[in-house]
Amino acid sequence: MDKQSLFGQIQKKSSFLCVGLDTDLSKIPPHLLNEEDPIFSFNKQIIDHTAEFAVAYKPNIAFYEAMGAKGWESLQKTLDYIPDDIFTIADAKRGDIGNTSSLYAKAFFEKMNFDSITVAPYMGRDSVGPFLEFDGKWVILLALTSNEGSQDFQVLNTEGDKPLFQQVIEKSQQWGHEGNMMYVVGATRGEKIKEVRALAPDHFFLVPGVGAQGGSLEEVAKYGMNDSCGLLVNSSRGIIYASSGEDFGQRAGEEAAKLQREMARLLEKY
Amino acid sequence: MDKQSLFGQIQKKSSFLCVGLDTDLSKIPPHLLNEEDPIFSFNKQIIDHTAEFAVAYKPNIAFYEAMGAKGWESLQKTLDYIPDDIFTIADAKRGDIGNTSSLYAKAFFEKMNFDSITVAPYMGRDSVGPFLEFDGKWVILLALTSNEGSQDFQVLNTEGDKPLFQQVIEKSQQWGHEGNMMYVVGATRGEKIKEVRALAPDHFFLVPGVGAQGGSLEEVAKYGMNDSCGLLVNSSRGIIYASSGEDFGQRAGEEAAKLQREMARLLEKY
Repeated sequence: MDKQSLFGQIQKKSSFLCVGLDTDLSKIPPHLLNEEDPIFSFNKQIIDHTAEFAVAYKPNIAFYEAMGAKGWESLQKTLDYIPDDIFTIADAKRGDIGNTSSLYAKAFFEKMNFDSITVAPYMGRDSVGPFLEFDGKWVILLALTSNEGSQDFQVLNTEGDKPLFQQVIEKSQQWGHEGNMMYVVGATRGEKIKEVRALAPDHFFLVPGVGAQGGSLEEVAKYGMNDSCGLLVNSSRGIIYASSGEDFGQRAGEEAAKLQREMARLLEKY
Repeated sequence: MDKQSLFGQIQKKSSFLCVGLDTDLSKIPPHLLNEEDPIFSFNKQIIDHTAEFAVAYKPNIAFYEAMGAKGWESLQKTLDYIPDDIFTIADAKRGDIGNTSSLYAKAFFEKMNFDSITVAPYMGRDSVGPFLEFDGKWVILLALTSNEGSQDFQVLNTEGDKPLFQQVIEKSQQWGHEGNMMYVVGATRGEKIKEVRALAPDHFFLVPGVGAQGGSLEEVAKYGMNDSCGLLVNSSRGIIYASSGEDFGQRAGEEAAKLQREMARLLEKY
């Protein structure tokens, strides 16, 4: 999916919501456990109830990988079930030497047909480059994450008086462009988003920190939005685990709708 | 496997060789393609012929993941086939927020029973910590890799006039110890290994850069060895693809034996 189509979906749905499919067998409603593929059954209902409010789905690959071969089957079925006009993100945080990154790229882009994948920057250009060689596919590069450990290395001051995440954003703009690269930007403080937005005015940001990880949607929009919206804001647990009963799908839809209404307001305002 | 047992194996075999199982369907001998599980058939013969010369096996997870559910089955069968006294490394380069890293740790340490996993440091302490909570299991943290892109961020000068990889090594020693943490140290230049050895005198290094990636075994031993050897030197393509004929297993064994003899000499010398 290209940038224009993504922005088109955002306008059509008045939403920049990404639903995180961090589906965990120990957290899904117990009545699903008798089904042949409980993970897919869960995801299917979540998708049925949230698709009108979301512009992206982001399965965190760890949740599927933890279940072995069966998990990969559930993931593929989920991906095939997501409507074609919704952007898909493999939250995999991969990154390896060139020929290995090529394999990961083929696995996620060709074999599974994801639109994008999250990538870790530590190994540099030749670890990221192979993901950029696929037409219509995207790299979402970790820049400033929302976890506590982001303070260990990402904000270290480096050459030119620049924090490490700034080096990542500046250098990577020589590798890709706003049509094939996004950045993960944690939403813990509005002023930080403003700082990152100044470094990459035209790129989309994937913002993981709204909801369970804390972070204000208003601040994210105020400081992060650009002319093409430029934001995909993720919510996982707050939506998919809104209820542990048989009404989980419906309740997920209600939570997604609530966020979508707020996003519609913010798209008007900023 | 604990540090003492690993060193015991190194002494017993006079070897610090790690064989990289980067098994690629497009590179294995064509006569194997008719087998039910060509990847496992290949790995089985490689293991049969190299086990007496190697102290570790390192499947690069990308090669298996690229084949979907079937690849994970081949990986599990391979892992089950590796003799118990040989150290196993999941070359996965994972790293995510805490609860997700926990899932990856369970997948690789409990479900698949690897001894260790390679982890990327960018997300900091709470992304690495979950891997350190398993008795007898190891984190192998990316410090200084051997690819060209290692120059993009890993060697950037940071606070205290320290390159980023030094920050990674220093900080991570507060998270783990030489009994549960190793470092990936690229073998392109001896002086660099010397520099890293000074930062982590007692830790094992996994050295990926000997063989196809260039790098001298003599230099690695001279500058990197410590009282417990402290080195696992990996060779992948030079061993497993030594021949593309029916003699591939035997030829792999010969290449492994050659490296082992050189390592025996170096273990005597340094």
